[in-house]
Amino acid sequence: MTLTKKIPEKTVERLCLYSRVVSDLEQKGTASISSVELGERTDLTDAQIRKDLSLFGQFGTSGRGYEISYLKDELNKILGKNKTWRLAIIGLGNLGSALLAYPGFKEYGFEIAAIFDNDLRKIGKEWKGLTIQDTSELVKMIHEKRIDIGIIAVPHTAAQEVAEKLVEARVVCILNFSPVRLEVPKEVRVRNVDLSMELEILSYYLANK
Amino acid sequence: MTLTKKIPEKTVERLCLYSRVVSDLEQKGTASISSVELGERTDLTDAQIRKDLSLFGQFGTSGRGYEISYLKDELNKILGKNKTWRLAIIGLGNLGSALLAYPGFKEYGFEIAAIFDNDLRKIGKEWKGLTIQDTSELVKMIHEKRIDIGIIAVPHTAAQEVAEKLVEARVVCILNFSPVRLEVPKEVRVRNVDLSMELEILSYYLANK
Repeated sequence: MTLTKKIPEKTVERLCLYSRVVSDLEQKGTASISSVELGERTDLTDAQIRKDLSLFGQFGTSGRGYEISYLKDELNKILGKNKTWRLAIIGLGNLGSALLAYPGFKEYGFEIAAIFDNDLRKIGKEWKGLTIQDTSELVKMIHEKRIDIGIIAVPHTAAQEVAEKLVEARVVCILNFSPVRLEVPKEVRVRNVDLSMELEILSYYLANK
Repeated sequence: MTLTKKIPEKTVERLCLYSRVVSDLEQKGTASISSVELGERTDLTDAQIRKDLSLFGQFGTSGRGYEISYLKDELNKILGKNKTWRLAIIGLGNLGSALLAYPGFKEYGFEIAAIFDNDLRKIGKEWKGLTIQDTSELVKMIHEKRIDIGIIAVPHTAAQEVAEKLVEARVVCILNFSPVRLEVPKEVRVRNVDLSMELEILSYYLANK
């Protein structure tokens, strides 16, 4: 699809939201939904929804709305949910270990295919059916294991270096759990999950309520 | 502080960023920084930084910049980092258990003071020095334990109900890990950490690269 570059990340976020609502509705046996109703369920305007969806095709019929099962399938295709993507977790400290144990990845169609650490006591050990690889082998192993997404769970001092190795190994999608703004080429997509910042923001509101 | 309501959440996010940069610089022994340099380190304009900081006081001197240790202390005060906040985790499935084991909370000055589940096999058991409470007792226990922040880690079907109980118990800060947009009164601050959405967004880029 040649559209990708033109679709803002905020639009993709909204597509995820539509996908969820539509999946929920399908489970409840709903057959169709208007853009107005979809708007009410997502706190968005119907105009926004029609605009977002029209970027990808003609999914609804004027006056009849969107057919749920068709829209769900199309959103799944757009969001790549009909494929399995291969993850690598880099850094098996407390956070990385928690992620490795988290079944959500599999549930959402992601396979943890490689795990890395730089601790000599960990390297070579088996964990959840995977052998812990040496981070110094990252570039080679990421290639071999055909990794799609790198999950960075190393201390913040090492995050940028790991990101650069992932880029060298031609990984274009990174989920970064370290509290660092990574510098990567613009074709690489980084999503940040920054627990400490979330907590600090809530701390601000508590301190200033 | 009466300012709170007027400070946009995006500004608070940037304050967190400044706080980090300034803490890092203090550790490296840097004495002062100009708004231009702070801008370079945060990918923001110096005008933005001066504007953000001026909302809270006069922290710098024209031509000499900001004194690092003073700015760090002031940011810590603004962000409530000089206090300990009490957390409750609701839902001890895979994600909640991972959070309970995560040492980052303590590191950032947050104390896990209560844990809840609705599984009869879990209720009453000790875990990490805490007794697992019955979610049906949530409102009462949240009061008793003087909880500041509620962390929602229940399945998405139960998240809204838990949020309402937290609101009833006068909790004003919620960290929500369930993939649901919670409906809460506007004085309640919700921060969302939605791993499945992060993965879906990356999946989109992989499917459309």
